[in-house]
Order: sequence, then structure tokens, then C-alpha cells
Amino acid sequence: MVKKFNIHSRSQIDFIDITLEILKSVEESNTINGFCYIFIPHTTASVTINENADPDVVFDIKKALEKIVPFEENYKHLEGNSAAHIKASLMGSSEIIFIESGKLVLGTWQGIYFCEFDGPRTRNVLIKIT
Amino acid sequence: MVKKFNIHSRSQIDFIDITLEILKSVEESNTINGFCYIFIPHTTASVTINENADPDVVFDIKKALEKIVPFEENYKHLEGNSAAHIKASLMGSSEIIFIESGKLVLGTWQGIYFCEFDGPRTRNVLIKIT
Amino acid sequence: MVKKFNIHSRSQIDFIDITLEILKSVEESNTINGFCYIFIPHTTASVTINENADPDVVFDIKKALEKIVPFEENYKHLEGNSAAHIKASLMGSSEIIFIESGKLVLGTWQGIYFCEFDGPRTRNVLIKIT
Repeated sequence: MVKKFNIHSRSQIDFIDITLEILKSVEESNTINGFCYIFIPHTTASVTINENADPDVVFDIKKALEKIVPFEENYKHLEGNSAAHIKASLMGSSEIIFIESGKLVLGTWQGIYFCEFDGPRTRNVLIKIT
Repeated sequence: MVKKFNIHSRSQIDFIDITLEILKSVEESNTINGFCYIFIPHTTASVTINENADPDVVFDIKKALEKIVPFEENYKHLEGNSAAHIKASLMGSSEIIFIESGKLVLGTWQGIYFCEFDGPRTRNVLIKIT
Repeated sequence: MVKKFNIHSRSQIDFIDITLEILKSVEESNTINGFCYIFIPHTTASVTINENADPDVVFDIKKALEKIVPFEENYKHLEGNSAAHIKASLMGSSEIIFIESGKLVLGTWQGIYFCEFDGPRTRNVLIKIT
């Protein structure tokens, strides 16, 4: 079954740590050994796994993405948010994480981030656990 | 079982909407609840999920990728298509999409694109449904 | 069950071909038809699939990534390795490969690379086969 939860981004580019929500879903599923799939059903948002100890890491990732794909750049798409679409495709719309002994298998420094590129908005995160 | 279909790219960089072909494969599999895995068995092509309403979005994504990874750049690889290899790794070789009630779980604006970076060529797309 | 193996990167940015190790794990699992999931439990390393015939391809990918995300760039993160975190998120922490007739389904030119962005270090690669 697909589980869905809402998320509220607070700025145009916003990385939100969803590790605890994902952990909770895994616990509720009572899965001992399997996979947790995360899917973002939006074309201007993504999911990524990166450090959640020092918030400066996320600050630097957001700044670097903005430099690689500037918001203003003579894009053709009239809605004006092409940079958000490009960032979303570069970062990807899904992640898979192993579940062992009822726990997510993540490295010491790894957290799961919802990546907003065209906020602020209310968004959905989809999860499927097997 | 792995299903394979052919695709013909028409230019060096070409994004081809394969959503309908993937939908057809899901329907033919009679899967009610599961996953659709897409894998591109090439090193200069990718798959991505992004907007398929306004074609200008794809135009802007292709142009941005060309700016981030220019085709001409004193590459060492003698075949001359290193830019295509780099784009392929940045965009990724696989996607996973949930299947619920016999349907692909995609957001309103999401379509699935085969991304050619070294065309025109005949290419394969591999699908596995569980 | 999650299988783990160690890898030793030899420089700051280092792509290591792990295709043979993955093939061996698939053989040992005696899986005829299924999936091989690869997950990198680090925030400054990744996994990617690309050409393993001409080593110049990997040389060009590493050089391009260094140009897109320079190591020195007034980053805020005090550890000084933000560029490695950014590259890791751009390249992704997992790959999925189909298994058919007991073999990995890879294209003719495809190999699997562990991507080090903050080496040299000893790293882990996690594999799960279903």
C-alpha cells in the first residue's frame, strides 16, 4: 500500500529533513526485512540522502545547485520555473533504503531530505514498504 | 521477466516521452499493486521523470544540461562523446514507479522521458514489473 | 539479507569499478530472476553506472564534476568537504540492476562504479539481492 504524507516548504529552495517521518512509517509497517521506497510526485521537487548533522551542508548544497542552475536564465517555459524542473531531474524523484531488523539501513551521517525547488508550497511524499 | 522495447532518437540530445509505452506494459502485466522498474542499458542515455504538459520544460532542461556539460570541452576520451556519458551519470539509468489499483502512481504533471545524449540512434528501454 | 563489502579509495576523487564484486555477490546468492540493489551508506560518495571499456571516460566524468562543483568555493560547512556532499547528491546513493537467468542485466558497455568524492578512505558498499 502507498502511504502519503504532507509537507510544507517555507521558501523557494528548501530542504526538509523527513528522516523521522520515514522511520515512523517503517516502524508502523512492522517490516523486519525489506525495502522502503520514497517517491516524490512533483516535477519541481526531489528527494536526496545527505548529511543531517551540520545544517551548513544543506546550505552549501542549495547554494551550489542555484549556481549550477540559476533561477533566471532566459528559459522558454512561460511559467518561469524551469530552473526548478532542471534541479528536480538532476536530484531525482525517488530513493530506496534497505530495512534490516526493523530499522532503516542508513550510514551514520545520512538523513533523508525532501528538496523543494519551487516553493513555498504544500507537497506530498509517497512511501511504499515491502 | 524483463520486457524490452526499442526507441529511435532523432537528434544528439533528445527527450522522448515513453509514459504511454510504460502504461501499456503495466496494463499488459495485470499487476494490481507493485512496482514498475525502468532501466536504460546504455552509457550515453538516461531516464527521468518530469513535466510532459508544456514541451518548453524539456527544451529548457536539454539546454541547461548542454550548458552544464558542454559537448566540446577538451575531453580525453577519443570517441568524442564524453559529454553524453557525463549527462547520463548525472541523470541516472533507472526509475521506480509505484503501481496501485493497476495504475502507475504519477503526479498530475509527471511523465517519463527517455533521455538521449548521443543520438540519433536506436536504443533499448528495459522494464520489469513486480 | 544485506551484504557489505569494503573498498579503499586512493585519492580525493576516485571511481572504482565494482562490477566484478557485484557479479560475485549475485552468483553466490543463486538468484535466477530478481533485482540487485546497491546502496552507499556515505554522504560524500556515490554509485553510478557508466562505461568501463575506456578509462578516459571516467577521467572525463571526474574532471567535469570537479568543474561543475569546484572543491574550493567559499562553502560554509567548516569541514571543508561540501563539494563532496554536493557531488554525492547529484550522482545518487543507490542503483538497481535486474537479474535474469542468474546474470546481471547490464548493457554491453556498462560497468558499476563506486564514486569517491572525499578520499582517500575505507568505505562500505551495501548490496541486497531479491
